Amino acid sequence: MTVTTPRGFRASGVAAGLKSGGAADVALVVNDGPDATVAGVFTANRVKAAPVLWTQQVVKGGVVRAVVLNSGGANACTGPAGFQDTHATAEHTAAALTSASPRLRLAGGDVAVCSTGLIGERLPMPKLLSGVRTAIRGLSRDGGTTAAEAIMTTDTRPKTTVIQGAGWTVGGMAKGAGMLAPAMATMLCVLTTDAVAGPDTLDAALRAACRVTFDRIDSDGCMSTNDTVLLLASGASGIEPTEAELTAAVTAACHDLAQQLIADAEGATKQIAIEVVGAAGEDDAVEVGRAVARNNLVKTALFGNDPNWGRILAAVGTTGAAFEPDGIDVAVNGVWVCRGGAAAEDRSKVDLSGRDVTIRIDLHAGSAEATVWTNDLSHAYVHENSAYST
Amino acid sequence: MTVTTPRGFRASGVAAGLKSGGAADVALVVNDGPDATVAGVFTANRVKAAPVLWTQQVVKGGVVRAVVLNSGGANACTGPAGFQDTHATAEHTAAALTSASPRLRLAGGDVAVCSTGLIGERLPMPKLLSGVRTAIRGLSRDGGTTAAEAIMTTDTRPKTTVIQGAGWTVGGMAKGAGMLAPAMATMLCVLTTDAVAGPDTLDAALRAACRVTFDRIDSDGCMSTNDTVLLLASGASGIEPTEAELTAAVTAACHDLAQQLIADAEGATKQIAIEVVGAAGEDDAVEVGRAVARNNLVKTALFGNDPNWGRILAAVGTTGAAFEPDGIDVAVNGVWVCRGGAAAEDRSKVDLSGRDVTIRIDLHAGSAEATVWTNDLSHAYVHENSAYST
Repeated sequence: MTVTTPRGFRASGVAAGLKSGGAADVALVVNDGPDATVAGVFTANRVKAAPVLWTQQVVKGGVVRAVVLNSGGANACTGPAGFQDTHATAEHTAAALTSASPRLRLAGGDVAVCSTGLIGERLPMPKLLSGVRTAIRGLSRDGGTTAAEAIMTTDTRPKTTVIQGAGWTVGGMAKGAGMLAPAMATMLCVLTTDAVAGPDTLDAALRAACRVTFDRIDSDGCMSTNDTVLLLASGASGIEPTEAELTAAVTAACHDLAQQLIADAEGATKQIAIEVVGAAGEDDAVEVGRAVARNNLVKTALFGNDPNWGRILAAVGTTGAAFEPDGIDVAVNGVWVCRGGAAAEDRSKVDLSGRDVTIRIDLHAGSAEATVWTNDLSHAYVHENSAYST
Repeated sequence: MTVTTPRGFRASGVAAGLKSGGAADVALVVNDGPDATVAGVFTANRVKAAPVLWTQQVVKGGVVRAVVLNSGGANACTGPAGFQDTHATAEHTAAALTSASPRLRLAGGDVAVCSTGLIGERLPMPKLLSGVRTAIRGLSRDGGTTAAEAIMTTDTRPKTTVIQGAGWTVGGMAKGAGMLAPAMATMLCVLTTDAVAGPDTLDAALRAACRVTFDRIDSDGCMSTNDTVLLLASGASGIEPTEAELTAAVTAACHDLAQQLIADAEGATKQIAIEVVGAAGEDDAVEVGRAVARNNLVKTALFGNDPNWGRILAAVGTTGAAFEPDGIDVAVNGVWVCRGGAAAEDRSKVDLSGRDVTIRIDLHAGSAEATVWTNDLSHAYVHENSAYST
């Protein structure tokens, strides 16, 4: 039910000692083909980790045979030496994989690298490279689950998904629990498919999928230095879906993983969908949704089970979207507490006892809509991010 | 030491029953002249409270004789009825003041109105108007202190200031502890001066002052619906300072009040100055400062006494300012923990045991600089904003 569900992929996850607790921290995903097509989407942060800089280059060629991922260190803000560490990891992985499976004949440029963990510290390279060799020995057709576990940081559970096409499949894994914000909104994600797809089709499908999924979740408004989403195609099914079919499946996989990320966000007690409707355009709807999703006063109110629609309106008012302030309606869990920019139904009617919260904002300015997902701001978030360096 | 220190002003503060606890909640500031010049700066939020809409109009005329302020209710998102409440408050204040001091001959359009408190609820008008009448009876030349107390909401202490010119004075009071973000960064502020100044000079001085003070503090990234800064000039000193002299004094007063706001921010345990230097332009420096000030991961790290410069770089990376990622230096309390975008001095050398924190960011892209002030994100902030509606 993960990256190894589609045919043509092997994976593994091992403990290399990068994390102090002895948990798995190095993952490897290998595409055995026949194809080795790839597409990637990366953080928009201008401060990019070394593995992002490396993998962006690698993906440009449209071919990737293996992805090596580590938790326990982001290799971000580590200067030229950190970039050399990433390069060495790719070269070492290529050589060791070729030695183990000579028919693969990998070069360093066939290997994508992803890292996650504390920013600003060098990786312990001997441990990491030793872990890569162990991971290669452990590669298997059902290794996707241990790979998903090996990329966890503050995640409390691994995130995996499978979407079935007609004779082909999309699988995926992701990690991320904080520093989630558009664009991008996940830390690391590897998707695999046994469909046949050219690099342009793969790229178009992945971008379309990310735009309405990972780019629309916002846990804490903080954009990461390491965000990477890769989509690998093996072609092992022999079936070539249309771009629309592929996009639909990849979007479903990304949506599933994005929802798992928000559900496991650091300290969250509420999972919040902000549905913006009646917008003049989709961009307006997304801008309003993000402004509400990032508003600490809205997020703390919901943590306190308070349907404080005034704070929601104050957040909407910071945007440039088309609306009239006295033309906005707001419903919280189905109760229209605000109509025409003023109080309507009694806020005591709103039931916020559950984990799921839906905020619906009608701008009455058009017919476009978008949903942004977020979570509340809790004591546990403050604790997790003040008591530990991450 | 407040709005009544400059000659020509009386003030008072009374408990009208708008707050449940019986604390003072209605304040009045009267300009006895001879001049009644005014300038105002207001929230950039497009969802503006009724008193903001009213006072923006009133200030356009360049003349204001009295300011009536209430805590215990923001009168925001209250529709046309809320606007009528503000209008009625101004008319009632004008009539009652004229009755008490016939030489003032006030009309409603001479009265500015400011409100602060919960968004989305109507004000209890009989209580408010009764409070205004009591406040008029209590007006005195030393009423500035009680006025400053009457505008407090979650503030733990009143904020007042006095700056001495050469034969003239600027006094001020402000309130605000949350929902502080550019632009504007305070909820309510009334400044007074006995200098002689035309409306254009007053307006220029106030805008220049706000730009480098209230617009550069950011407590929680949340922009209010009610922010109002008014500057009233009585001309009672008979002295007309130059625009530069007046600007300097008003800036000093605003700076003092802005620092008091950040010092009293909800739940804050750290008072943080973010000094951005080496910027290509002042706008770049401000953009970078604000991005760091709004980053929840930076703010929680500092709450935990963690000089997590990686999170600072990640925040800088979200901006459009001119810089090279590998050209950024960061010092925390004087220790250059990051040079050239990578680790430098040992982070354990940073002393974060005190309340004051200085983050210095050198972009190495030019010679412009700016400082933005903020505070940390603590358990007390989450508690205060989840346990109570504000």
